[in-house]
Amino acid sequence: MAEQFISDRNLKFLLYEVFNAEDLLAYPRYAEHSREVFDMVLETALKMARDLFKPIVSEMDKMPPVYAGGDVAVHPAVRTIMREAGAGGWIGATFSYEDGGQQLPEMVGMMAPTAIFSAANYSAAVYQGLTAGAAGLIASFGTKEMKDRYLPKMLAGEWQGTMALTEPQAGSSLSDITLAGEPTDQGYYKMKGQKIFISAGAHDGVDNVVHLAIGRIKGAPAGVKGISLFIIPQKRIGAGGDLEANDVNCAGIYHKLGYRGAPITHLAFGENDDCRGWLVGEANKGLGYMFQMMNGARIDVGLGASSIASAAYYASLAYARQRPQGRRLASKNPLEAQVAIIEHPDIKRMLLFQKAVVEGSLSLLMQCSRYADMEKVTTGEMRENYNLLLELLTPVAKSYPSEMGILSCSQGLQILGGYGYCDEFPLEQYYRDVRIHPIHEGTTGIQGMDLLGRKMTMKKGKAGELYLAEVRKTIREAEQDAGLKSLAQALEKALGLLEKVTAHLFSVAAGGHPELFLADATLYLEFFGIIAIAWQWLLQATAARKALATADQEAEICFYSGKLFTCRYFFGYELPKIDGLAARLLCSDGLTLEMQDVHFC
Amino acid sequence: MAEQFISDRNLKFLLYEVFNAEDLLAYPRYAEHSREVFDMVLETALKMARDLFKPIVSEMDKMPPVYAGGDVAVHPAVRTIMREAGAGGWIGATFSYEDGGQQLPEMVGMMAPTAIFSAANYSAAVYQGLTAGAAGLIASFGTKEMKDRYLPKMLAGEWQGTMALTEPQAGSSLSDITLAGEPTDQGYYKMKGQKIFISAGAHDGVDNVVHLAIGRIKGAPAGVKGISLFIIPQKRIGAGGDLEANDVNCAGIYHKLGYRGAPITHLAFGENDDCRGWLVGEANKGLGYMFQMMNGARIDVGLGASSIASAAYYASLAYARQRPQGRRLASKNPLEAQVAIIEHPDIKRMLLFQKAVVEGSLSLLMQCSRYADMEKVTTGEMRENYNLLLELLTPVAKSYPSEMGILSCSQGLQILGGYGYCDEFPLEQYYRDVRIHPIHEGTTGIQGMDLLGRKMTMKKGKAGELYLAEVRKTIREAEQDAGLKSLAQALEKALGLLEKVTAHLFSVAAGGHPELFLADATLYLEFFGIIAIAWQWLLQATAARKALATADQEAEICFYSGKLFTCRYFFGYELPKIDGLAARLLCSDGLTLEMQDVHFC
Repeated sequence: MAEQFISDRNLKFLLYEVFNAEDLLAYPRYAEHSREVFDMVLETALKMARDLFKPIVSEMDKMPPVYAGGDVAVHPAVRTIMREAGAGGWIGATFSYEDGGQQLPEMVGMMAPTAIFSAANYSAAVYQGLTAGAAGLIASFGTKEMKDRYLPKMLAGEWQGTMALTEPQAGSSLSDITLAGEPTDQGYYKMKGQKIFISAGAHDGVDNVVHLAIGRIKGAPAGVKGISLFIIPQKRIGAGGDLEANDVNCAGIYHKLGYRGAPITHLAFGENDDCRGWLVGEANKGLGYMFQMMNGARIDVGLGASSIASAAYYASLAYARQRPQGRRLASKNPLEAQVAIIEHPDIKRMLLFQKAVVEGSLSLLMQCSRYADMEKVTTGEMRENYNLLLELLTPVAKSYPSEMGILSCSQGLQILGGYGYCDEFPLEQYYRDVRIHPIHEGTTGIQGMDLLGRKMTMKKGKAGELYLAEVRKTIREAEQDAGLKSLAQALEKALGLLEKVTAHLFSVAAGGHPELFLADATLYLEFFGIIAIAWQWLLQATAARKALATADQEAEICFYSGKLFTCRYFFGYELPKIDGLAARLLCSDGLTLEMQDVHFC
Repeated sequence: MAEQFISDRNLKFLLYEVFNAEDLLAYPRYAEHSREVFDMVLETALKMARDLFKPIVSEMDKMPPVYAGGDVAVHPAVRTIMREAGAGGWIGATFSYEDGGQQLPEMVGMMAPTAIFSAANYSAAVYQGLTAGAAGLIASFGTKEMKDRYLPKMLAGEWQGTMALTEPQAGSSLSDITLAGEPTDQGYYKMKGQKIFISAGAHDGVDNVVHLAIGRIKGAPAGVKGISLFIIPQKRIGAGGDLEANDVNCAGIYHKLGYRGAPITHLAFGENDDCRGWLVGEANKGLGYMFQMMNGARIDVGLGASSIASAAYYASLAYARQRPQGRRLASKNPLEAQVAIIEHPDIKRMLLFQKAVVEGSLSLLMQCSRYADMEKVTTGEMRENYNLLLELLTPVAKSYPSEMGILSCSQGLQILGGYGYCDEFPLEQYYRDVRIHPIHEGTTGIQGMDLLGRKMTMKKGKAGELYLAEVRKTIREAEQDAGLKSLAQALEKALGLLEKVTAHLFSVAAGGHPELFLADATLYLEFFGIIAIAWQWLLQATAARKALATADQEAEICFYSGKLFTCRYFFGYELPKIDGLAARLLCSDGLTLEMQDVHFC
């Protein structure tokens, strides 16, 4: 039997039973689809993941990309996978028909291909995800000429796409970007500068790489108000229509802890004064454009972390079922056979933690996708509201899965004991792979400031109000079910604490202390995230309770019962953590402002 | 300037200002020493760590041991280091003069060499630590002949020592050990069986390896009551006095996530029916003997984790001081120069977390060493009490640093952003190295059951009572200082919660529910550990406040102020976590007993 890395039963539960994907079929954008189509999409993605992605997950880790003389050689399967993903329509799964896509709902595309491919082999899945992100930016803001030039090749998996933000002197601080674009009268800009940490920025699995890069037009204002977005292809189309070098050179790749199947590159633009870039949209508005891609990328990071944690969960579950060790406490007779370790309560606790993190995170991410879909099919205030909800939850959906995914993979590793630490088993790789997620596309610290400093305050706090109403809608529904009433009450209490903490922090901000307001923003994000996942578990439990009432097959009863146990786990073991966080957040004694560099000794 | 990996100022603070090592000089065992000797020991260890250990920490990771044809080739420096450590008296630092040691207090030996060497290069330090542990077992329970044969070679670093417990079918379940010893009339046993995961079980950095292995004499009772302890040398002394092979073969080594400088071996004993083992002490009492070594090894694991976390802390602190990025929130002008990231409150919070974990853990470990020293120099009930305190705190001193050391290294990695994920910087190695500690010498799950199921219940709970009295002594003293009164009260409140939770769990046990009693023992350990570290921070703060009253040098004022800030951090950010844990521990709804294998799907 093939190794399990994701549960299609769970994906269908989320899609149809929790988030009602079939509702979307009523809107013209999705009218050509059906539940059968969605099911087929899931099955086809699973097959491809099993056949192409999963078999080389360890091999890609052990044979990382090799850099030599400006070229980056990746695993030969990368080329096959990119082409197959292109041919299968996976890169353009959610793109409009007019842009060459399949026009699938975001909810479906998030599961198949992204979650399925990522759980099977995260590094291999990143190539397509980045290409889709970059292509999406061109589809949204590019000219017709740009779309015609780039989209077909990118969606076919022939050309790689990247997002190129980070520079050596500007990591989290985008206002310090210096990549320079000098206008010419030929319709392009002459580019000069460097980018670092660019995922898939150069490799031999594609024929070209299309960088969506932020930089500054000469003379632009300082800071974020002077940032423009450029397309800078590795190879440009020459006079004769052939590809020719565009003076984009890979200066090296990084040797990383994990996520080793994809190269992270250091790029130099215009070293020979012959690098051309094309402005996307209006000058000096690049950061806004980039943030469309960035928001999608942040959701993808949360999804990547959840997917790796999913693979780790199923690997440790399989081990726990087959590994005999020790006996039940009630029968310590050494002559009795040992039991499988899944019989031990502490092992079950660790598995429950993993299941709660993985399925709770996937649910929150699906919630975000549902908002993204609804934003696409509605108009006016309704559309704006969905956008606000998505904006608010993006830092949470990026960070909770990323931070907790690490702990979840770590618990998976722990279940295997000494074997978990050895590379004969897959856990140590998952543990390394998943460590990237709190870093890339904006660190957890940046997400915390985004949530508290921007998202909760924008439009006079409207996003926060909409969010509370959404959660309360779930609570009201759950309260109708006597079996969920106490959980609903616990969540209502948690929301009260969220309101109290938020009001306290706003009062600090109103008192003229911006640094104190944001000093513990990372903890606020953690606090907010736990409550958001509790919400998602209550939502899942409500659906599971309804289904249980009529379920008659053993496997289905087990599935729904497992959901209810895991919901109880989350409310019993995880939700209480908000009390300690609230105690800290309500304190605001300014400790981290007061303590100075010299005191760290 | 050399990279810092530990603070000798902090070690001296703990030794002299918190734990009054000079008190020990009054006892005959330590009368020949002096504070000057202790200082010299620290300085010499630091010099050796800087010169020999630290320079090859990354190299040993990147060039792990190589197995070929039964032999294990380790980094050539291992031989030099073992010999120098032997010649310098480091392996026998705390051994009695009569056993060839330096008779240093445990408190001193824990810092120098163990913490200092481990912080500089954990893998390299393990070879000596294991040798000292195995030699200690021979010194305690071996015959004079055994001592004469093994101790001089082991303490000189010429022969490696190991502890050989784990077998393929018996990881955490020692009652299932099967290594067999068949009595002969030659004074030795013929051994047959296998051991796995044996650290430094075979390598070319020494001339011989001495295994202290648990097994069963043929016909011994099943379970732990039939376990005996054997010395099984890799090479035995032949008739002519030369070393000859003893049919102990290395069948392979494991490829590990981290801690790569030391080989972890799979050993086969008696494949050719010619493996001799010598019984240590009485038959069937082996587990009790082994636990002396095991307890020491568990303390060493906690110390190893703290030491790696110390190196990670100083590496991320150095980075935070030199890396410019972003600006203070109050001045977002992009034309201003960027500030070092240590100016950002969220970075300070992460550094404070690391400092709190590292220095809190080292303090708890020193507390344990002080009890070990007092046990050595006292008699009767007093001695028994120190032993009980040490027994009680051993699982805590093993697990808190191990679990939190991972999170601490992870925060260090996070401070470096993308660079933290790359192997140009040392954080990713520390993050891998430190992941072993919740696994080896008894997983965290095992430690939790040991604390709650054995240590808290033995002798009618006497150890717990003694512990509460120790913590309250610290509280009473801190209360005298108005500046610490609120912290003292917070700790008293936490103790109250500890008593409440413990009483609740005992009532579950008394109700005849042993599995329910221990179901969340891991969480009880976490809960207990946070309070224990809060105690240690209050102890340190009390000493720091006293010293601050008369300190006049800037560096000293900064040092003590840093201690007070970190104590405030621990009470403000970490201690509140006990509330969420207590809420769970007081629940005992049996969730992890109720949920079954089939529900994980």
